[in-house]
Amino acid sequence: MDDVLQNIMDHAVAVAREAGQVVREALCDEKQRDVMTKSSTVDLVTQTDQRVEHLIIQSVKKKFPTHRFIGEESVAAGEACVLTDDPTWIIDPIDGTTNFVHSFPFVAVSIGFSVDKKIQFGVVYSCLEDKMFTARRVKEHSVTENHLMLFSSISDVRRSIIATEFGSNRETETVEKIFSSLRNILNIPVHGVRGAGTAAVNMCLVASGCVEAYYEVGVHVWDVAAGSVIVEEAGGVLMDVEGGPVDLMSRRIVAANNGTVAHIVKEIDAFSPTRDDAPPTQ
Amino acid sequence: MDDVLQNIMDHAVAVAREAGQVVREALCDEKQRDVMTKSSTVDLVTQTDQRVEHLIIQSVKKKFPTHRFIGEESVAAGEACVLTDDPTWIIDPIDGTTNFVHSFPFVAVSIGFSVDKKIQFGVVYSCLEDKMFTARRVKEHSVTENHLMLFSSISDVRRSIIATEFGSNRETETVEKIFSSLRNILNIPVHGVRGAGTAAVNMCLVASGCVEAYYEVGVHVWDVAAGSVIVEEAGGVLMDVEGGPVDLMSRRIVAANNGTVAHIVKEIDAFSPTRDDAPPTQ
Repeated sequence: MDDVLQNIMDHAVAVAREAGQVVREALCDEKQRDVMTKSSTVDLVTQTDQRVEHLIIQSVKKKFPTHRFIGEESVAAGEACVLTDDPTWIIDPIDGTTNFVHSFPFVAVSIGFSVDKKIQFGVVYSCLEDKMFTARRVKEHSVTENHLMLFSSISDVRRSIIATEFGSNRETETVEKIFSSLRNILNIPVHGVRGAGTAAVNMCLVASGCVEAYYEVGVHVWDVAAGSVIVEEAGGVLMDVEGGPVDLMSRRIVAANNGTVAHIVKEIDAFSPTRDDAPPTQ
Repeated sequence: MDDVLQNIMDHAVAVAREAGQVVREALCDEKQRDVMTKSSTVDLVTQTDQRVEHLIIQSVKKKFPTHRFIGEESVAAGEACVLTDDPTWIIDPIDGTTNFVHSFPFVAVSIGFSVDKKIQFGVVYSCLEDKMFTARRVKEHSVTENHLMLFSSISDVRRSIIATEFGSNRETETVEKIFSSLRNILNIPVHGVRGAGTAAVNMCLVASGCVEAYYEVGVHVWDVAAGSVIVEEAGGVLMDVEGGPVDLMSRRIVAANNGTVAHIVKEIDAFSPTRDDAPPTQ
């Protein structure tokens, strides 16, 4: 199985790089950054998101015709978001679409691969930085020429940087929950709060020791599937925002080094968005 | 005067690049990122900040012995922070010290040069990205091989990204003011809120069209002197957070494209930190 999996992972890395090239080229063409909206006026999508997801899926289908897919844009178009035991590619063609629209420098292609409902490997290509992050669930992590994982050993949360996002839900109750957590965390006090504008890159920032923890409520499985392996294989831990095991369909995540995770979970004012795998409402 | 000024600016670019190299090398040495604190437990400084400021000042003194200096670390050490009509170098050796301590990817050397109390040119070297931003107050901006200025023409503030920071002041009243402004801005609603963790880079993000506006209360003159010219020469505007002309000693700034500046100023819950040029308290 190992060789088979490595073969699949090699294809994921190659197609992520190809997709990243398309994204970079699209940056130079205003039309390809034209904005459509999804769940709210600030939940953005472009034709490039759709085109890149199509490119990835077609490329995989040709090589692995029996594999299944959960893709951000396919789900937006009405496909089911249910994880089975089958080999499944979990794809965010552009994590950080808002960044992409504005040329803000963090834009990632995120590909996780699941078998038996467990993510086997993750590939995050931060394509404007040209940094490739990959990890396989074997307690070894592979690292490209662009990037050296230097996991943080800071255990004093007051010496940490925490990553999070405001997200695209601007309902008063949600914004106040987000502010409440932020206020608690700033008051610890931590060194700082940052956000790359993409969950996948935030998780890679945890893996590479630039931040000690990342948390967010409102993410989707395609934002965090790849990053989840990258964080764990770098030595980090995943948790639900109220403690306990993470559930990648729950839209809630904490990714952190061991020293800070418990402190961060304690400060989060949790809430529960509709799950990714909830049956569609009539 | 033009050739003289160009000569001074060339030296600023050269010494910024040299300083950036020292910063990059220091990243690999834990000792050089050892933290001391200044105004609060999260207002950080390292020996590298001090060493890089010394390097810049010594290099300039050798070539321009009559010039004066306002440097972040010199002021922290007790020197006056007063702008005169004399040629004055306004230096932040490491803008984004917290980022530097954590290897978060935005760390800048910022050098502004003032004559007759007016900033004549600005040099911001984002040294981990290896992007050099320079501008001279002549309504032309020079651009290096690394970077192309693409100023944003977005005039609908609901399509904007706004940059700001939480800062290192964690007093309840200050944090609540910061949250109040943030809440207003998220509710516009804007596409997103981001922060690089350095004022100088945030201003370069405005100049390069990645964000439409940046505002902050609590910055210092050395954080924004260089960026002020870079924003204006790219076509942007500077303003005080309550409208009216910016005062670089006031620790309050809005830097924006023309289309969004008025909208942003309207949403900021302003306050007034102690001015940079306030006489020292007894």
